[in-house]
Amino acid sequence: MLAGVGEEAGDLGEFELIKRLLARVGPLVADVLIGPGDDAAAVRLGPGATLATSDLLLEGVHFEFGLSSPADVGWKALAVNLSDIAAMGGAPRYALVSLGAPAAVPVATLEALYDGIGECAGSFGVSVIGGDTVRADRVIVSVAVLGEAGHAGMVTRSGARPGDVLCVTGSVGGAAEGLSLLQAAGDDPQAAGLLTQFPGLAVAHQRPTPRTREGQTAAGCGATAMIDVSDGLAADVCHICEASGVGVEIREASIPLPDGFRDTARWAGVDPLRMALDGGDDYELAIAIPAAQVSQLVEALAPTVVTPIGEFVGSERVAVRADGTREPLDALGWDHFKEEP
Amino acid sequence: MLAGVGEEAGDLGEFELIKRLLARVGPLVADVLIGPGDDAAAVRLGPGATLATSDLLLEGVHFEFGLSSPADVGWKALAVNLSDIAAMGGAPRYALVSLGAPAAVPVATLEALYDGIGECAGSFGVSVIGGDTVRADRVIVSVAVLGEAGHAGMVTRSGARPGDVLCVTGSVGGAAEGLSLLQAAGDDPQAAGLLTQFPGLAVAHQRPTPRTREGQTAAGCGATAMIDVSDGLAADVCHICEASGVGVEIREASIPLPDGFRDTARWAGVDPLRMALDGGDDYELAIAIPAAQVSQLVEALAPTVVTPIGEFVGSERVAVRADGTREPLDALGWDHFKEEP
Repeated sequence: MLAGVGEEAGDLGEFELIKRLLARVGPLVADVLIGPGDDAAAVRLGPGATLATSDLLLEGVHFEFGLSSPADVGWKALAVNLSDIAAMGGAPRYALVSLGAPAAVPVATLEALYDGIGECAGSFGVSVIGGDTVRADRVIVSVAVLGEAGHAGMVTRSGARPGDVLCVTGSVGGAAEGLSLLQAAGDDPQAAGLLTQFPGLAVAHQRPTPRTREGQTAAGCGATAMIDVSDGLAADVCHICEASGVGVEIREASIPLPDGFRDTARWAGVDPLRMALDGGDDYELAIAIPAAQVSQLVEALAPTVVTPIGEFVGSERVAVRADGTREPLDALGWDHFKEEP
Repeated sequence: MLAGVGEEAGDLGEFELIKRLLARVGPLVADVLIGPGDDAAAVRLGPGATLATSDLLLEGVHFEFGLSSPADVGWKALAVNLSDIAAMGGAPRYALVSLGAPAAVPVATLEALYDGIGECAGSFGVSVIGGDTVRADRVIVSVAVLGEAGHAGMVTRSGARPGDVLCVTGSVGGAAEGLSLLQAAGDDPQAAGLLTQFPGLAVAHQRPTPRTREGQTAAGCGATAMIDVSDGLAADVCHICEASGVGVEIREASIPLPDGFRDTARWAGVDPLRMALDGGDDYELAIAIPAAQVSQLVEALAPTVVTPIGEFVGSERVAVRADGTREPLDALGWDHFKEEP
């Protein structure tokens, strides 16, 4: 019998499986005093505040193996947590990964998933310090990340003031469009064509880039509030408005859109402004910053593009269309309980 | 319409649901700089090492609502993580809780589950600092806990030496027997009778007590290795043996058993020694400690009973029956992938 060919998770048992998987996620750093394999991990953290966040990703709800490779799923499971630390202006350091999987899943699939986790961890200087594996009827990835507050202090959602400029890193709306195209591509040659012509849209869904450097830098430039765009630009900016007790005006014409955005919105028959405001899962940073600091921010974040797209105001929350029409910003972002996936 | 009657998770939406649930888990302590509601939580931890652990509990695999109340499930989801911190000799401080649930689950069920988390958190001085809720086809509770290493330093699994005494807190085997009785009680009047006569067996399964004080105290008394009994006494002591490169002799006659243990083993038709060695989920501490320190440990842990049950030796791993028969200790503890639940 050939070792490793066709092996399933159930052939290995819990301890052997977790050992095999954790071997894929790269070496531990010196600050890891006790790594995986004991009752708990032990790490050293800086003297400042410790940041902590966790996310639970489920097959069939947050990802489909038909639309993302196992390595993409692993990358994204860690990336979305790093994005939360980035949105506080902090530096991610350590991750705990709990995995649920059916016994019949090929070990190679899980190894590829952990390769993706390892790739993301390596790219952003994070060590995977522990884990848990359990039998489940679908793949479940639960990640918790610990980080250190940045030297410039923590940036919450609650510090935006009227007059502050709203900026966003990269571009938004691409992840939602990429997902729609991936879901349709099997039956719809036009969708398949758009995916080929604009490969960045699929990548935006499958491998979001957590903006960890950008978050720390923005904190240093005087950002007053920050959030990562996970529920959709409108919903997430409204979270800042609620926490800060302010309003916002977003200029449609200024929103940075990825290549192929308008073609895809046309294919989907969706108002491009709605798609840009409501498409979630981009993991870009929405940043509130005093107007006087914007040019410094733009310079400091290069080569990452950061774009001023509006202004915080007294209380009204509106989007201003290119033709000057003003539309109320409804918080229509993704809601895990109310909407169907 | 009566507010709150018959409400389901899907009626509330993600943000309202998590707000309602986190309101049940008690006040935050001063060291929580940023609690739930921002991208990440921020806490202060002591200057020593930070301990971190996580566990993923699934309905149908780790718990059944027919056998445990929602509050029991919440208690246990946190308790098993506190137990891991205890087994390092550390003090648990903060918890992140991610919840998956079907939209049709009554909000009251989830609130009761969080009441159980809050009750456990309050009993052991832990603050719930963050959370995530997602839609799932069954209830999933994923908990990560941060703690501080104790003043006496961390106790891993790898420090046991030949000659050290093996001690165990409380009693073992009760949780597995309690689960068997609970599973059978509907159809089997004898099982139901045993549950009534020996209520501690159900409690051992439903509401295990994490030994956080005992773990820190044992570290101070000079424990050389420690583990919590989650997979079963034999399997967990074998984990110490593997990590420490030693063997062990466990004396059957010394193993502390709960009230009703032998009656239940007889009812189940199981060899009581097997049941005591292989029944997992007790969350007692197995402690290796030099012989000269045992009496100090017994005194310091009171009123919790701690019992010497054997000795670490060169390499052999055996259980010695009351009649002197020696049997190899197979690591037959619960394996999440190889065994059916």
